[in-house]
Amino acid sequence: MAGNSLGKEFVITTFGESHGKIVGVVIDGCPAGLPLQEKDFQEDLDNRIPAQPNIVSARIEKDRAKILSGTFNGFTTGAPIAITVENKEINSSDYDAIKDKPRPAHSDLPARIRFGGFNDYRGGGRFSGRVTVALILAGVIAKKLLSTIKVEILAYTKAIGNIETENPTLEDIRKNRFNSPVRCPNSTASKLMEDAIIEAKKEGDSLGGIVECITLNMPVGVGEPLFEALDADIAKAMFGVSAVKGVEFGVGFRAAELKGSENNDQYEIKKNKVSALTNNAGGILGGLTSGMPIIVRAAIKPTPSIAKQQQTVDLAKNENAPLSVKGRHDPCIVPKAVLAIEAVVAVTLVDHLMRAGFIPIVLKEH
Amino acid sequence: MAGNSLGKEFVITTFGESHGKIVGVVIDGCPAGLPLQEKDFQEDLDNRIPAQPNIVSARIEKDRAKILSGTFNGFTTGAPIAITVENKEINSSDYDAIKDKPRPAHSDLPARIRFGGFNDYRGGGRFSGRVTVALILAGVIAKKLLSTIKVEILAYTKAIGNIETENPTLEDIRKNRFNSPVRCPNSTASKLMEDAIIEAKKEGDSLGGIVECITLNMPVGVGEPLFEALDADIAKAMFGVSAVKGVEFGVGFRAAELKGSENNDQYEIKKNKVSALTNNAGGILGGLTSGMPIIVRAAIKPTPSIAKQQQTVDLAKNENAPLSVKGRHDPCIVPKAVLAIEAVVAVTLVDHLMRAGFIPIVLKEH
Amino acid sequence: MAGNSLGKEFVITTFGESHGKIVGVVIDGCPAGLPLQEKDFQEDLDNRIPAQPNIVSARIEKDRAKILSGTFNGFTTGAPIAITVENKEINSSDYDAIKDKPRPAHSDLPARIRFGGFNDYRGGGRFSGRVTVALILAGVIAKKLLSTIKVEILAYTKAIGNIETENPTLEDIRKNRFNSPVRCPNSTASKLMEDAIIEAKKEGDSLGGIVECITLNMPVGVGEPLFEALDADIAKAMFGVSAVKGVEFGVGFRAAELKGSENNDQYEIKKNKVSALTNNAGGILGGLTSGMPIIVRAAIKPTPSIAKQQQTVDLAKNENAPLSVKGRHDPCIVPKAVLAIEAVVAVTLVDHLMRAGFIPIVLKEH
Amino acid sequence: MAGNSLGKEFVITTFGESHGKIVGVVIDGCPAGLPLQEKDFQEDLDNRIPAQPNIVSARIEKDRAKILSGTFNGFTTGAPIAITVENKEINSSDYDAIKDKPRPAHSDLPARIRFGGFNDYRGGGRFSGRVTVALILAGVIAKKLLSTIKVEILAYTKAIGNIETENPTLEDIRKNRFNSPVRCPNSTASKLMEDAIIEAKKEGDSLGGIVECITLNMPVGVGEPLFEALDADIAKAMFGVSAVKGVEFGVGFRAAELKGSENNDQYEIKKNKVSALTNNAGGILGGLTSGMPIIVRAAIKPTPSIAKQQQTVDLAKNENAPLSVKGRHDPCIVPKAVLAIEAVVAVTLVDHLMRAGFIPIVLKEH
Repeated sequence: MAGNSLGKEFVITTFGESHGKIVGVVIDGCPAGLPLQEKDFQEDLDNRIPAQPNIVSARIEKDRAKILSGTFNGFTTGAPIAITVENKEINSSDYDAIKDKPRPAHSDLPARIRFGGFNDYRGGGRFSGRVTVALILAGVIAKKLLSTIKVEILAYTKAIGNIETENPTLEDIRKNRFNSPVRCPNSTASKLMEDAIIEAKKEGDSLGGIVECITLNMPVGVGEPLFEALDADIAKAMFGVSAVKGVEFGVGFRAAELKGSENNDQYEIKKNKVSALTNNAGGILGGLTSGMPIIVRAAIKPTPSIAKQQQTVDLAKNENAPLSVKGRHDPCIVPKAVLAIEAVVAVTLVDHLMRAGFIPIVLKEH
Repeated sequence: MAGNSLGKEFVITTFGESHGKIVGVVIDGCPAGLPLQEKDFQEDLDNRIPAQPNIVSARIEKDRAKILSGTFNGFTTGAPIAITVENKEINSSDYDAIKDKPRPAHSDLPARIRFGGFNDYRGGGRFSGRVTVALILAGVIAKKLLSTIKVEILAYTKAIGNIETENPTLEDIRKNRFNSPVRCPNSTASKLMEDAIIEAKKEGDSLGGIVECITLNMPVGVGEPLFEALDADIAKAMFGVSAVKGVEFGVGFRAAELKGSENNDQYEIKKNKVSALTNNAGGILGGLTSGMPIIVRAAIKPTPSIAKQQQTVDLAKNENAPLSVKGRHDPCIVPKAVLAIEAVVAVTLVDHLMRAGFIPIVLKEH
Repeated sequence: MAGNSLGKEFVITTFGESHGKIVGVVIDGCPAGLPLQEKDFQEDLDNRIPAQPNIVSARIEKDRAKILSGTFNGFTTGAPIAITVENKEINSSDYDAIKDKPRPAHSDLPARIRFGGFNDYRGGGRFSGRVTVALILAGVIAKKLLSTIKVEILAYTKAIGNIETENPTLEDIRKNRFNSPVRCPNSTASKLMEDAIIEAKKEGDSLGGIVECITLNMPVGVGEPLFEALDADIAKAMFGVSAVKGVEFGVGFRAAELKGSENNDQYEIKKNKVSALTNNAGGILGGLTSGMPIIVRAAIKPTPSIAKQQQTVDLAKNENAPLSVKGRHDPCIVPKAVLAIEAVVAVTLVDHLMRAGFIPIVLKEH
Repeated sequence: MAGNSLGKEFVITTFGESHGKIVGVVIDGCPAGLPLQEKDFQEDLDNRIPAQPNIVSARIEKDRAKILSGTFNGFTTGAPIAITVENKEINSSDYDAIKDKPRPAHSDLPARIRFGGFNDYRGGGRFSGRVTVALILAGVIAKKLLSTIKVEILAYTKAIGNIETENPTLEDIRKNRFNSPVRCPNSTASKLMEDAIIEAKKEGDSLGGIVECITLNMPVGVGEPLFEALDADIAKAMFGVSAVKGVEFGVGFRAAELKGSENNDQYEIKKNKVSALTNNAGGILGGLTSGMPIIVRAAIKPTPSIAKQQQTVDLAKNENAPLSVKGRHDPCIVPKAVLAIEAVVAVTLVDHLMRAGFIPIVLKEH
């Protein structure tokens, strides 16, 4: 299974399991000259986990990034950057009970077959949401690089269960997303989502949702069609985040129902600048950036691990068995997925921007 | 722009433009010992284009595959297989008029910027649907390889505009999809879709739709998470087909609205065989095959090139300009996209099956 | 066997066999805006084969390049460029006799095992020197790109058998290498080499030799250590040319015998310009260009196919068998290897120059 | 600089600098089910550094491997394996003096230009021989995998300066190489080499040499020509080790001087088994394994850092400057390179064996 790297010129390789010593990432191809310190990771590590314990399961002690290589005197050197975060407060006892009872909708069963039973099943092991911490680490560096050319990226919770927020303003997203326990910038929708999660939790159930990610200020023409089209690579990266079941750009699946005359984004020219009147395309045409904001959404499935009783099989006893999953599980992983989605999109953009020459291999000044 | 290859061990590289001499593909990593002749490509080349001229634009003369390398005595040799199809009946005159008027929702504008105006704009050039012929060629070989291990793949039109078919039976898909001019196995829905396309065409407009692709009989545990997860690689490949704006697996975006207890596919064991009671996951868990059929859908946008007048800009004159696209354009590209989608999924599956050891590098017998 | 591509951003994929219809190449990632016509390939195609029939076997009819895709109005478009050369005057009858008798030192036996006997054995098939024509095609484009930033590349025959030329001047190489039937710029050495080849041919034997390749004017700091160090990638590319058994840079294997004080290239500064007093390193330090000329040599083994009788085995009869190889075989392949070596080095340099940003993705003017 | 990964299905990614916190490696694609513990690395970590302080510089405290991820209950899980070794006893004070005085024959000058002066120059930083510790770690795992199919790999010192050992027996190499302070299995040659190193050290000078690596018992037909030919990938990997200036297989550069009749390895058949009478090819024909032992040699240049005075330039003062390198430097790095060379060859072989299906993705038993 050699699929733990993402990117071609800006390459991240992640490692670590839920109940192992650490999770971590190696970033290869980062330009030299980017200011980077361990404290730069703290904001995103903190924002990954909402402070409200009724919304997500939280390890009490904070995650802290440790830079192992690739920086010198406070700047990146051009050498590979290895960063780890320690796994603390691990309690693996809950998992022995379910070792032979694969959780429905989780990777337990296919992973067991793929790895001949050698996989670390504790907490989902390599398939745990915990491994997205490594994505967060890479995302911090990618976003610092994007900011050197004024590209801004903003992910937020668009929907949880059947509650969907209207399109928030950019300003709302910037200001409010991390104040919301569910990472939804609209306070009314946020409250409803929060209530829905608490309700689902009470029932021993879980909820899914939708994360939207908006990227502003991308140069035009970035992407390498056919197969390394920018939308193709963004989608691939997003499916690398646990629990993503669908990805769409702009109007997405709704495009299937529109007529050409409704879907086409017509152009106008103002002061020598061409722009589109609408952005149904979500900022990507023919696999290349169009100059409009990139709008992409991911559908996140409800957490598979639920307290409510389900039917599974006991592989040791070779019989059907009831299962009620114990232990620390989020009733909804959407809030935690927001920064992971943002991170993988940022990483993909940096990779393509470097390949197209928009981010150089040495940053002279910033 | 070095993104014209797909795959890691079974690698396809496509080339060719809409109004150039040929479109073609090189397939590298195909196992030796697969029977392969030029006539093997004819069925899919024929099925790519519905016979009904009111539904799609058709070049009158049939496409014919020419094998340039990689076979000997009727079998693949293990050497790279180059295959081309000639472009005939090209009329490039229609395009001079719109050279400086980028078509809304098409790649014209970003491609012009990306390639400094050197791109072949005739018929969309490298961004034309014509290039999917190369995918069809690769798909034929991939499907022959899949069939050696009894894996079957079936794509069909699920929706056009706001007409959606109910889930057809596998038998219906096998028997009826290519009898339908829109590649929809349900005859009632097919007729409605056909009418809708004809109506849109009359209005100088176009329609989009949804293609669903079902894969049967995949072994369990195939895929290389995190970033080369099977769903990630399938999604990436599908976004390599023109006009795809969204990809979803199983219940897809609807998973966002379900509770865990509704979405989870519970297990049962019968005669020592574990199976899931439902397939909301679409056959993929944690990026690995679950053993259930792989179900994936692509949202296809309506054809951007429409006769109806739209606003664009005249880049030479630096002013807004009306545009009514002339020339041979499909009012709906969904029927033509069916085999292209099937092809890229097949190619991705073969790549992963080879990497996991399920398809060997030499086929002894079949 | 999916190893027929070379490069990461400037990627060539070759295909074709000795006795198939064509040999060809797809070049993906070529910048847009490079002037390119079919006649641009003729000089190198002609120079590949010395005119003297006593030195090499020559097909009488000239090789002609055919561009299938990737250009428009005489310029590259940024789309993949497919180019083929037809195989003419093929006589495959000689090979039936030796189908079951693997030629010593040729790929016959391992290829037969690798490909389960499905490989095209005629003329060595995919393993023939004929496939280097595809390299020549890619090399022409690579060298045109190098010339846009004044990088010059010059390969020539350094040794044949035990005759080695002294270091020629750059001017000698430029002027005389293709006047020499053996591609050695020193006329005295050239004559001796020619005689040695004729003598070996008379004896039904063959000779090897050494090709040296010099690259001038490379920018400093190009390469991506550790594993994509420039010397690593050049060496890899050179071993992709049939019959190469060794690669060395600068003083190469002689470095093993020198002391540090003898081998180190000391620096001096003149008019603010740092340069090295010697170039024992061959222009590469720590996997990066040093600014001095890149000097690399390949050892080419003697042609395995010889008329002289050797012992092999008859795999059909399961017994030892004498073998005297008939047919069109070069008594020395070194002269034909010169441009192939030059081509793969050029391709590798362009790939790395693009990755480091020295060659842009669109050539504005040249 | 995104070149810190090696391999396609068995992929190693290294990180760390000479004077940073650690050096380390992530191994992605290792089969599940391989027994692996931290103590398994100790033998090679110890053997990397000869015990004799007059031969090499040694850090006094032993290197210890720390497994961060990828194992569970003493076996590999199929997840990426991250391993680090701490850097101890670092004294960076020696380097401030030479910050602006690039050492001849070292990467100092090109690295400074490539990385805009941001590179960690202390001890050569990312270009130090210290980073080969990461290779050793990967090599241990690769060799464990090779041993599951009885492939054995043996590197040793063939020459130091102008002292070259005759071909030792395999038994000699197995028994004696690590008893020799210079890793040469022939005790007479070993003593002469040792004396030569001591003599060079006294003079403030340094020596280079040749490492030979022999691989036994490889299956026939492994490799992916043209460009991922086994010799191409082995050579590439070897040039990833600092100070390698040449690579050759079998008779190598001597092949250039032999006639075909001398160089060709003739075949014989005995008891239905075909073998070659000689092994001038070094076990590789046409980029594929021939079934004979793989014999490859690397030329290692003398240590660039010498006490003897040399001329360099003071980049701060813009003038020529004398340089006498202080600090901990090996008078000869050949002994330390032996296991690094062995490691990268082993890694490359495992990658190709996995791709060809000879090593499965799950090891059932061993």
